[in-house]
Amino acid sequence: MKEYCGVFGIYNSPNAAYFTYLGLYALQHRGQESAGIAVTDGKRITYHRDFGLVSSVFSSEHLDRLTGHTAIGHNRYSTSGASDSPDNIQPIVVSYKHGQMAIAHNGNLVNALELREKLEEEGSIFRGTSDSEVIVHLIVKSRKKRFLEKLMDALSQLKGAYSLLVMTNKKLIAIRDPWGFRPLCMGELNGSPVFASETCAFDLIGAKYVRDVEPGEVVMIEKGEMKSFRIPGSESARRSQCIFEFVYFARPDSQIFGRSVYQVRKEFGRRLARENPVEADIVIPVPDSGVVPALGYSQESGIPFELGLIRNHYVGRTFIKPQQKMRDIGVKVKLNPVPGLLKGKRVVVIDDSIVRGTTSRKIVRMLREAGAKEVHMRISSPPTKWPCYFGIDTPTREQLIASSNTVDEICSYIEADSLGYLSLEGMIEAAKGSKCEFCTACFDGDYPIEVPDSIVEQAKKE
Amino acid sequence: MKEYCGVFGIYNSPNAAYFTYLGLYALQHRGQESAGIAVTDGKRITYHRDFGLVSSVFSSEHLDRLTGHTAIGHNRYSTSGASDSPDNIQPIVVSYKHGQMAIAHNGNLVNALELREKLEEEGSIFRGTSDSEVIVHLIVKSRKKRFLEKLMDALSQLKGAYSLLVMTNKKLIAIRDPWGFRPLCMGELNGSPVFASETCAFDLIGAKYVRDVEPGEVVMIEKGEMKSFRIPGSESARRSQCIFEFVYFARPDSQIFGRSVYQVRKEFGRRLARENPVEADIVIPVPDSGVVPALGYSQESGIPFELGLIRNHYVGRTFIKPQQKMRDIGVKVKLNPVPGLLKGKRVVVIDDSIVRGTTSRKIVRMLREAGAKEVHMRISSPPTKWPCYFGIDTPTREQLIASSNTVDEICSYIEADSLGYLSLEGMIEAAKGSKCEFCTACFDGDYPIEVPDSIVEQAKKE
Amino acid sequence: MKEYCGVFGIYNSPNAAYFTYLGLYALQHRGQESAGIAVTDGKRITYHRDFGLVSSVFSSEHLDRLTGHTAIGHNRYSTSGASDSPDNIQPIVVSYKHGQMAIAHNGNLVNALELREKLEEEGSIFRGTSDSEVIVHLIVKSRKKRFLEKLMDALSQLKGAYSLLVMTNKKLIAIRDPWGFRPLCMGELNGSPVFASETCAFDLIGAKYVRDVEPGEVVMIEKGEMKSFRIPGSESARRSQCIFEFVYFARPDSQIFGRSVYQVRKEFGRRLARENPVEADIVIPVPDSGVVPALGYSQESGIPFELGLIRNHYVGRTFIKPQQKMRDIGVKVKLNPVPGLLKGKRVVVIDDSIVRGTTSRKIVRMLREAGAKEVHMRISSPPTKWPCYFGIDTPTREQLIASSNTVDEICSYIEADSLGYLSLEGMIEAAKGSKCEFCTACFDGDYPIEVPDSIVEQAKKE
Amino acid sequence: MKEYCGVFGIYNSPNAAYFTYLGLYALQHRGQESAGIAVTDGKRITYHRDFGLVSSVFSSEHLDRLTGHTAIGHNRYSTSGASDSPDNIQPIVVSYKHGQMAIAHNGNLVNALELREKLEEEGSIFRGTSDSEVIVHLIVKSRKKRFLEKLMDALSQLKGAYSLLVMTNKKLIAIRDPWGFRPLCMGELNGSPVFASETCAFDLIGAKYVRDVEPGEVVMIEKGEMKSFRIPGSESARRSQCIFEFVYFARPDSQIFGRSVYQVRKEFGRRLARENPVEADIVIPVPDSGVVPALGYSQESGIPFELGLIRNHYVGRTFIKPQQKMRDIGVKVKLNPVPGLLKGKRVVVIDDSIVRGTTSRKIVRMLREAGAKEVHMRISSPPTKWPCYFGIDTPTREQLIASSNTVDEICSYIEADSLGYLSLEGMIEAAKGSKCEFCTACFDGDYPIEVPDSIVEQAKKE
Repeated sequence: MKEYCGVFGIYNSPNAAYFTYLGLYALQHRGQESAGIAVTDGKRITYHRDFGLVSSVFSSEHLDRLTGHTAIGHNRYSTSGASDSPDNIQPIVVSYKHGQMAIAHNGNLVNALELREKLEEEGSIFRGTSDSEVIVHLIVKSRKKRFLEKLMDALSQLKGAYSLLVMTNKKLIAIRDPWGFRPLCMGELNGSPVFASETCAFDLIGAKYVRDVEPGEVVMIEKGEMKSFRIPGSESARRSQCIFEFVYFARPDSQIFGRSVYQVRKEFGRRLARENPVEADIVIPVPDSGVVPALGYSQESGIPFELGLIRNHYVGRTFIKPQQKMRDIGVKVKLNPVPGLLKGKRVVVIDDSIVRGTTSRKIVRMLREAGAKEVHMRISSPPTKWPCYFGIDTPTREQLIASSNTVDEICSYIEADSLGYLSLEGMIEAAKGSKCEFCTACFDGDYPIEVPDSIVEQAKKE
Repeated sequence: MKEYCGVFGIYNSPNAAYFTYLGLYALQHRGQESAGIAVTDGKRITYHRDFGLVSSVFSSEHLDRLTGHTAIGHNRYSTSGASDSPDNIQPIVVSYKHGQMAIAHNGNLVNALELREKLEEEGSIFRGTSDSEVIVHLIVKSRKKRFLEKLMDALSQLKGAYSLLVMTNKKLIAIRDPWGFRPLCMGELNGSPVFASETCAFDLIGAKYVRDVEPGEVVMIEKGEMKSFRIPGSESARRSQCIFEFVYFARPDSQIFGRSVYQVRKEFGRRLARENPVEADIVIPVPDSGVVPALGYSQESGIPFELGLIRNHYVGRTFIKPQQKMRDIGVKVKLNPVPGLLKGKRVVVIDDSIVRGTTSRKIVRMLREAGAKEVHMRISSPPTKWPCYFGIDTPTREQLIASSNTVDEICSYIEADSLGYLSLEGMIEAAKGSKCEFCTACFDGDYPIEVPDSIVEQAKKE
Repeated sequence: MKEYCGVFGIYNSPNAAYFTYLGLYALQHRGQESAGIAVTDGKRITYHRDFGLVSSVFSSEHLDRLTGHTAIGHNRYSTSGASDSPDNIQPIVVSYKHGQMAIAHNGNLVNALELREKLEEEGSIFRGTSDSEVIVHLIVKSRKKRFLEKLMDALSQLKGAYSLLVMTNKKLIAIRDPWGFRPLCMGELNGSPVFASETCAFDLIGAKYVRDVEPGEVVMIEKGEMKSFRIPGSESARRSQCIFEFVYFARPDSQIFGRSVYQVRKEFGRRLARENPVEADIVIPVPDSGVVPALGYSQESGIPFELGLIRNHYVGRTFIKPQQKMRDIGVKVKLNPVPGLLKGKRVVVIDDSIVRGTTSRKIVRMLREAGAKEVHMRISSPPTKWPCYFGIDTPTREQLIASSNTVDEICSYIEADSLGYLSLEGMIEAAKGSKCEFCTACFDGDYPIEVPDSIVEQAKKE
Repeated sequence: MKEYCGVFGIYNSPNAAYFTYLGLYALQHRGQESAGIAVTDGKRITYHRDFGLVSSVFSSEHLDRLTGHTAIGHNRYSTSGASDSPDNIQPIVVSYKHGQMAIAHNGNLVNALELREKLEEEGSIFRGTSDSEVIVHLIVKSRKKRFLEKLMDALSQLKGAYSLLVMTNKKLIAIRDPWGFRPLCMGELNGSPVFASETCAFDLIGAKYVRDVEPGEVVMIEKGEMKSFRIPGSESARRSQCIFEFVYFARPDSQIFGRSVYQVRKEFGRRLARENPVEADIVIPVPDSGVVPALGYSQESGIPFELGLIRNHYVGRTFIKPQQKMRDIGVKVKLNPVPGLLKGKRVVVIDDSIVRGTTSRKIVRMLREAGAKEVHMRISSPPTKWPCYFGIDTPTREQLIASSNTVDEICSYIEADSLGYLSLEGMIEAAKGSKCEFCTACFDGDYPIEVPDSIVEQAKKE
């Protein structure tokens, strides 16, 4: 089970549920399968969760019923799809010895199976299959006395990615794993602290970005007071912020890891142009994620930028597949070339990555059918060779075309005239800010945490 | 939280999910709020659950997806209504150290709060608020080795009502508490063991009734073999089968506690006639539960039976209440007197019980408006004076009109010409079979298990 | 297309839409496939209609939006089922030269096809396939000047059954065809005139029954004034009230054609007992329509009445049929014998009619399996030999078992020990009041209006 | 009632309904309120229609049931919103003297009211309020003999915009009004003729564009043969293709009126740059319609193009508006500025048009808050001063800011540093191809057909 996710939280604000709804709206791109909001009025946590987009999960009646001043919310995408259990929808809300607790989690743990087995050994009972349920159990099972100690006890056992919001009837706590895999931003709205996976959620509600929750940091707000703590042992963890957030996942109008996604993404395009120049007539993106790097490529190379492929934004999950053979309908229903524009042109087409290669091949063919004389594919990241175990959905090594093929072989498979990737060094150089260190495991296999074989095997089966 | 419920289970049968669907259909009267089916193919438990009637919760697609040979199902009615959590819908399905487990529970525990607190003290985490979740935790937490031992360990800690079906990937287990509060019947369909709250579920699928699961009995089926065990300490428990099942709750075409509900209910009417005779022209029931005792009353007294009140069976939960004042619309939408029939008549009207007295008063008035000259109310059970803590929804003592009013006072409140109840002795006499002993606490306050004050207080708050 | 229907109307009342909603609730048994309400505030007709039961078609939001003082409503059942067009849901609302008009129609016309063809010849356009649309066109097409004249012009062309409510922005009109096939009652609620197919709708809203709309009468209310007119030529029409309404269709607590349905239905049972006596131990009904005649049979014969078959009232249209062979599941899901009650008994079982004979056979078998020693079927109407073309759903002659089989042959087919029908004379005698004359065509083929061959042929195809 | 719409049709093809579904998918941008498909198998027209997006209106079960070889479909957006009648959803399907007919209509008639009154005078009955129903009546009412003659008779009475698909059980007919207001393209898929509002529908199904249906042309296909006819009197009509389709409405990857929307739209931007130059640091579009002209502006001016505003594509109709005052939440939920990018920059922002000015003002403010030093608004069309009566949703003259304000006044209202519009001449020059003549009434008030006062008044009331 791999999960993309978006999280949002707000402390002590009127309309907490409604702001959380807006925040999830802005973070919808991080998870379209289910959504949930839990809210507390200081005495009781209530919640509403369901499968679907934020806009279909919540009616105004739902929001009206979610009364309280502090709330957390969660958007989720899981690779196991429609057959997934409702027990996995977050926030997870439980009651235990000291009251109620709700958590919203973005990321994947590499030792979840191991921890789960240990917990089950000690008598823990699980409703769902998500990593996140493990965290709740560890907190509750801790023999420490105070909540913060229990929490620290639990966190110190986790290995992997977790940007986490924990809410009790009295506290709101924001946590980022020591490696800092996934983003988690802190903001402020009329004096109320807010947290979100990306700053675009702050923009929508008119909140100000304050700073990132730091890797290894625990920010706890209680009785109106905010305190910061360090996860024990977090100092020794290698900073490993997910560089793929810049490549594909985050919204371009967001700021994460202290940098503008737009600026970084454009710089990827500029460097790509310098590293992989080609003589051509136009630069076109594969929308939406290729648009910004294509702009960078165009600006650097001087080759004009055009929107040669138009995306149909009405396509959703409910599209009915054809019963009979209609080649490439999957790609065509999303993308369509602009007629005339490509005719006789030498085209540079910019995409963010190549996974299996099949979509790229369909795009190359589509461009040629639209009259392109040459098609030069440029990718705004290095070849994706290794699966991610920290929260990005990737297929197994076997399915990643770049894991067993050279760039030339891939170029030939996708039927392009040339193919160029951004170099790893170029990418890191483009992304890094003052204190940025990245996880680049999907490109170089250098996992910041050892990944147990069991996890690798499990991923293959899914 | 008080719960009516119906449970159904089937072991090693083709179409297990479909038979369970039919069984729940037949048991729909025991719970209309939510329904669920869990099924195992021997390796994995899958399930589907939702709010609503059986017919709306399950589509044929759902049933097709629930592949497996062994299944359990649950219908539920909870007094907390629409605001209830989806986490309470049964069967509860969990995974733990030794695999997966599903349970379906009918009944209420009086020491659930106490057990829950103890479990939470030891680190247990609860998703919902139902008693049933406690049972799962006790099983898993037991330090015994084998599953049966763990189960026995858990059961021996429970006080209260539980007719329980437990399913693992290898076993189906049917359990009835030592007191035997709620019914649980065993049947057989083409060699496959089946279990159901009432025998009407067997009739629908063409299964044969074999016998009741005995109070204190644990029937375990594994590898095709059925074994019977006793819950430790169950011998000392006083047999306390719920006599109210005969009065109101069970379907008249069912057999429970070894007796035909129809026959017992009619005998209630006969004795009621002997104990409370009156000169009258017709006997009419308050449908549906008053029909059978009214037949008995008529046959014993010789006063002709008529269907003087017609029930609208299309009335469901979704009826829109009037915004403005329309007196008695609640009763009228369900019941309507037959015009002409009652005019100038002395009417005996038979109901199963009087709770608050308000509905009875509306019925008496309705009959008078329809022309009845005299209205004699006869109740086929003794005055309901005490709340039930074992699975029947009753209001608090304060709200029960008979707890603080004499029969004369009640008669005067409901504006009847006379009022007569069946005596406790008469009722027991009518209901008892060879080995029948009953819980009559709602009539005499003689609770078979001591009810903790905390439970009494909690019930008041709901 | 054959249609059962219920209609309701109210003039100049606060909460007109809500009262209509209640009225349709009470008339739900007359049509469960779709429901609709049209309301006028004197300037504009608005409406809401959909497939489903009244309770699922209307939310309180819908009722709130249907503002106005005068309303009509319609419940519908069509034999063509789910594939039916939404264009057929009533009330039909149209706009034409002189404004808007809404109509709600119960009944079937025998010259609808002919009229439709003529109208189409003159350029009329039809959206749906119902007879009712024809009536609207005839009114609008009339060359008469005033609305009442146009209406009369239209009505004088209709042959067949129509109990009709017509609403314009200024008028409410209630009409019953000259033969008087279907019922239509007039009542009064706080000074507001109300109309309904049956009086049970008046009871629910607290309205008083005033009188029936007479066969051939047009009751028009405008500017608060009620006037009565006669359909031209209606004097010569033979009064032909549908006796089958008493047998099966109407609710027992209703009064139609000036008589109590309950009283008539019970008298059917009494006469049935006199005409077809048998020595037996118990009389049981096939619920629900057999209950009242069974009471009559029991009272006349002195044989005790018992509820030997219990009906599951939760069974709706959405029941999932079994994929594999499960014999008789269709009947069993609705009816279940009371165990024990029938064992060794000689049973008289009362049903309202036998159509194809298959259900009766299943019931006889079910009773024998439940232990009945003898099963004597008694039917509270004569053999059904002819199809109805006036609003009751019957199969073709070929499918009616009584059209080609003697009573003995039917008895043998349904495997009963004896079979007895009520005689036609007995039935008429029982039903008739001071001015009651009936259509008995389904029993004797004596159609009050000649039925064109085209209609007979069309019915066969459906 | 003003309507945007998209139409699609296919003749004699396997999977006709599925191709129509895909066609409507591609045309979803032309109408998101309701969708419908009607299909014929040569004998009977069946259809499915409902409110909602194509993806939610049709399930695979619906498509499976729509069997036939010829189909038409319709997407619709109406300004009257949710309160709109289901009777207005297209295709309209009727039966009349000669059989069944279905029509799908894009456009608005200016003499619909007048024709409707005349038709009502002659006895026509209308179910809905759309112009399109008038067309059906005119065809059926015509006294001509053959269908084509009737059709021509009807068309010759219409004044206004109509791109029309008419389907009978034997024919498919595509029609474009003499003025040619709305587009209608003809294509071919494996020998089957197809028609669509825009060519992007052809691209998705793999059909080839053949040519436009010409203004005033009637293309009729029957028995596999295609014939072309002219609407009587169409020669004298002034060619008046809607230039606003290029500005805003059509998809950029479509070809309409014989020209690539993308190319024309970019040329708008180029000319805008030449006509309204400004010294600036970046050019940014208001997405999505401003993107292509912004590219043109950038290329012509040499000022770098950036995506300074990001659009949230998950925003749908169901967004819950804030109860309390949250200023500008409406715009922000759709658009968000890229942080950092705009800081200290002189920004040229390109939009397609200004209607009331309020949105533009919010955008200008948003850009300034994001740090823009100067904001220069450039509009890729002339000032919108006049309402459209031919199928584009525009407010009344009074609400159009440009109808009563100079460019300077508008600039001051929207708080921009400068404001420039494309000139009418520049726009026409950019759009025109070999035989292109345009309706520019929304800019210059020069309506190609006289608009009756009644229509102008009616539009004001809506």
